[in-house]
Amino acid sequence: MPTIAELGENESLRRTIARLSTTNSALVGPGDDSAVVAAPDGRFTVTTDTMVEGHDFRLDWSSAFDLGFKAIASNVADVAAMGALPTSLVVALICRPDTEISWLEAFADGLRAGCEQLAPLAAVVGGDLATGPTTVVAVTAHGDLEGRAPVLRSGAQVGDVVAVAGTLGKAAAGLALLQSGNRDAISSYDELVDFQRRPQPPIASGVAAALAGATAMLDLSDGLSRDAARVAKASSVTISLNRRDLQGFEAMLEEAARAISANAFDWVLDGGEDHSLFATFPAGATLPREFKVIGEVIKRTNHDVLLDMAPVVEGGWDSVRD
Amino acid sequence: MPTIAELGENESLRRTIARLSTTNSALVGPGDDSAVVAAPDGRFTVTTDTMVEGHDFRLDWSSAFDLGFKAIASNVADVAAMGALPTSLVVALICRPDTEISWLEAFADGLRAGCEQLAPLAAVVGGDLATGPTTVVAVTAHGDLEGRAPVLRSGAQVGDVVAVAGTLGKAAAGLALLQSGNRDAISSYDELVDFQRRPQPPIASGVAAALAGATAMLDLSDGLSRDAARVAKASSVTISLNRRDLQGFEAMLEEAARAISANAFDWVLDGGEDHSLFATFPAGATLPREFKVIGEVIKRTNHDVLLDMAPVVEGGWDSVRD
Repeated sequence: MPTIAELGENESLRRTIARLSTTNSALVGPGDDSAVVAAPDGRFTVTTDTMVEGHDFRLDWSSAFDLGFKAIASNVADVAAMGALPTSLVVALICRPDTEISWLEAFADGLRAGCEQLAPLAAVVGGDLATGPTTVVAVTAHGDLEGRAPVLRSGAQVGDVVAVAGTLGKAAAGLALLQSGNRDAISSYDELVDFQRRPQPPIASGVAAALAGATAMLDLSDGLSRDAARVAKASSVTISLNRRDLQGFEAMLEEAARAISANAFDWVLDGGEDHSLFATFPAGATLPREFKVIGEVIKRTNHDVLLDMAPVVEGGWDSVRD
Repeated sequence: MPTIAELGENESLRRTIARLSTTNSALVGPGDDSAVVAAPDGRFTVTTDTMVEGHDFRLDWSSAFDLGFKAIASNVADVAAMGALPTSLVVALICRPDTEISWLEAFADGLRAGCEQLAPLAAVVGGDLATGPTTVVAVTAHGDLEGRAPVLRSGAQVGDVVAVAGTLGKAAAGLALLQSGNRDAISSYDELVDFQRRPQPPIASGVAAALAGATAMLDLSDGLSRDAARVAKASSVTISLNRRDLQGFEAMLEEAARAISANAFDWVLDGGEDHSLFATFPAGATLPREFKVIGEVIKRTNHDVLLDMAPVVEGGWDSVRD
């Protein structure tokens, strides 16, 4: 199997691009200096995120397919969190020169599957391929607001309900299982491990939340405690969470937690990478059914986040510290 | 001086974002899950590019300011090469955890200066900061076609003239000087070295070329021989270059070449990173004055590029081989 250094950039890219899906939004696709993408309402949303080997993934825990899938999932979640519909992505990959072309092809297959499963109207419309000592994936994703106002972090109002679409702590549980090295536990709870490798964020819920009148929204990438604090700060309010409402998320993870002597509730409160959607809605709103109420927005206190009215110490993931 | 690991992601980003310029195109700027950017004609152009330490730059040769400036320059050149006006960029930076905040601030100053000098209507509207063992800069740039058709690589027609706006070989000369380690030569030809560190692509010439009827255009990032071959392949034509028309570019570099026993014409023909614009125009067109004719488009031969009617072996830079 040839390496990408043997094939060169042009041929490696040609083989990769051939495996990607396409989108009607791409007026000009990959292969020129830039792609051209439709922005029907005269605006587009844009977000960028990187994944660094050793920090965000390990090549012995994640396949090339997993990595491509996760790159799509984590970025389209940031599009959904604005209340936008994902339309297009560009993907830059840095990998070692001795990377086999089959690895690159599997990565492209993961990109394709991520788009098809999570954001079927979106596709990768351009990219870049380079070599370096560490594998890095850098993705930029774009969305269409379809004429709506973007749902910002700063719009939460006192009296709003706080709700989540998607899982809490599932990706962190998967990571803890992998880190435990406990093979029995890893295979017993492979659904959690698979969720860490290929997150399943509720992308369509972003537009649904916007249509239901969400006042604030964000992608839960760094853990509930840390991300809720971001909304609290941006909106100058306090987020009050109810432990009772989080028990359902905890229950799903308790057996796995016991198997590796971990605490399931820590995963729920501080675990990152679920890429679920955290949103606030006016008290009277009819929530899309995938959203579960977990608390309410109260007047600003000395703390960003309360749990059963006690202060929550901000945990979660810091991309330059951890 | 604190490091970014000591300050954490939020504070490091806050200090960096405060130094960036702004743009009227940013309807929502940095700080949310996504930015929102205006796309007045209902489309946008998008391009992405990475710079990897050791491959694309060395931290002992380029300052943080240089690196930020170059990241902007190389990416807005890809916007200009479509005939579009740069509007916005997102920038992801991966650096070592012990990076001092002053380095990050200087990088942000370079981003700002790059926008202000090269694309004054554009600004950085979002980004990502992470740590890793190698410094990597990943930029995505967007442009506005202002209602025009994009200028692709595939539109060159037999009979067109071939022209270049900007320098040829100047960035390669600067690189060769740095690589030579010859301190006298480096200080004597510091203008060439500075051009390698902070390229000055002719961004406004992209829109000018589109308005003048350019049939094909691309950003000369990998060297004239390699990039001209890309237009030839995409347009199914042969690019015929005239050595006489390249002598002016060569003359500018001859003294520096002699100082380090190099060949100035090799830089002109194969040197990358000038980020000049290569374009083809109908024979009768009035070229924007910054474009210099260097050849013509002829019927497809067995070769992509000819120089004085002799085949040119494709040189230049391959991002996964070199």
